[in-house]
Amino acid sequence: MIEVVGVDGDDTLWHSETIFSVTHERMRSLLAPYVLPEVLDERLLATERRNLRYFGYGVKGFVLSMVETAIEVSEGRVTAGEVAEILDAGKAMLDHPVELLEGAREALEAVAGERRLVLVTKGDLFDQESKLARSGLGELFERVEVVAEKDERAYRRVLTGVGVAPPAFAMVGNSLRSDVLPVLGLGARAVHVPYPITWALEEADGDALAGRYEVLDSLRSLPDALRRLDAG
Amino acid sequence: MIEVVGVDGDDTLWHSETIFSVTHERMRSLLAPYVLPEVLDERLLATERRNLRYFGYGVKGFVLSMVETAIEVSEGRVTAGEVAEILDAGKAMLDHPVELLEGAREALEAVAGERRLVLVTKGDLFDQESKLARSGLGELFERVEVVAEKDERAYRRVLTGVGVAPPAFAMVGNSLRSDVLPVLGLGARAVHVPYPITWALEEADGDALAGRYEVLDSLRSLPDALRRLDAG
Repeated sequence: MIEVVGVDGDDTLWHSETIFSVTHERMRSLLAPYVLPEVLDERLLATERRNLRYFGYGVKGFVLSMVETAIEVSEGRVTAGEVAEILDAGKAMLDHPVELLEGAREALEAVAGERRLVLVTKGDLFDQESKLARSGLGELFERVEVVAEKDERAYRRVLTGVGVAPPAFAMVGNSLRSDVLPVLGLGARAVHVPYPITWALEEADGDALAGRYEVLDSLRSLPDALRRLDAG
Repeated sequence: MIEVVGVDGDDTLWHSETIFSVTHERMRSLLAPYVLPEVLDERLLATERRNLRYFGYGVKGFVLSMVETAIEVSEGRVTAGEVAEILDAGKAMLDHPVELLEGAREALEAVAGERRLVLVTKGDLFDQESKLARSGLGELFERVEVVAEKDERAYRRVLTGVGVAPPAFAMVGNSLRSDVLPVLGLGARAVHVPYPITWALEEADGDALAGRYEVLDSLRSLPDALRRLDAG
């Protein structure tokens, strides 16, 4: 029986990657005088990967990586005005209205009556707490855990904090790499709800574990999926 | 009897504000062609204050505010090379060796034998966890709580999570505003260990509550201070 359900935030409960995509698009036009769009994408991803050890995940690190990439691809010719536009795009992301995915609220409300809910998310602590507050879903969660990296160690800490054994915990999220694989590694259960876009640094191959987790088209079917996990 | 001791990180266990000061100094020389040092300080502080609602606390937001301020005070004349220097200064801060304050380790070790220790800190989650890991003090803490803002609500949540009543909790830190006042407001106890430099946004007046908390010159006297709190 699944007692505690961990739920991811970005691209599981609310849209996130689409907002990053819009900003990518703005960057491509802004820096078109200096660099081809596909080269920019590649360079930005390389910068983000290199900077993970300094910045971790989240919008603020993304904006810093965008500024760094703009300087590099323009060979130092990017103007202060263009850098200011990048900063503005970053603030627009942080200030963006929280748009829930279809069915998210209903699914959580249905589950909250029967099980304990914990939000498990990564990125900037401040930004994630702000999004949860603006989502109006805060009251449904017993607890909020913002972690620096979603690996087995982090999930083990969350489960200990919540006081639940792995077989009675299920994690729900859009990322195989962050929401499914480490959770299965612990002996807990997982429900994968893919989002149309996946950030390159979140890509993972779950084929070897196919059949060991539920896959849903939409959160609408979450209550049923959890009942299937209860049974099996 | 104090059962659980909350301990702040930046400028309580390890140096932080001195590293910000060094970066401020670098900014002043870098931007000397555009702005007088004292004007820069004022403008940077105004930017940081205005951006708190987007960035919260921490190094990444500080770096973004530095870039924004550089563009403003130079009236758009700051060069890409100068912006790159600001980004480098930010990474140097994030990569800076963690330097413990004198007596910090000994004090924690002495207390850890008798009471439960919890690190309660704010700023970038990723940066704070990285500093704790590099500090070598991680093993002494039962739990680490990185919070977005150190207010009464956040402390109430921490105390509930740890399972301790306010009179049995004492918070130790360098900031009256973040480590002392909200904790006293909850009916818990506090130990103030001032640091030579206080960031303007942390300034507060504790006069009205003088006598309601312990004030120490150094963490060395922490075990004695906690025994005094036990007694009174």
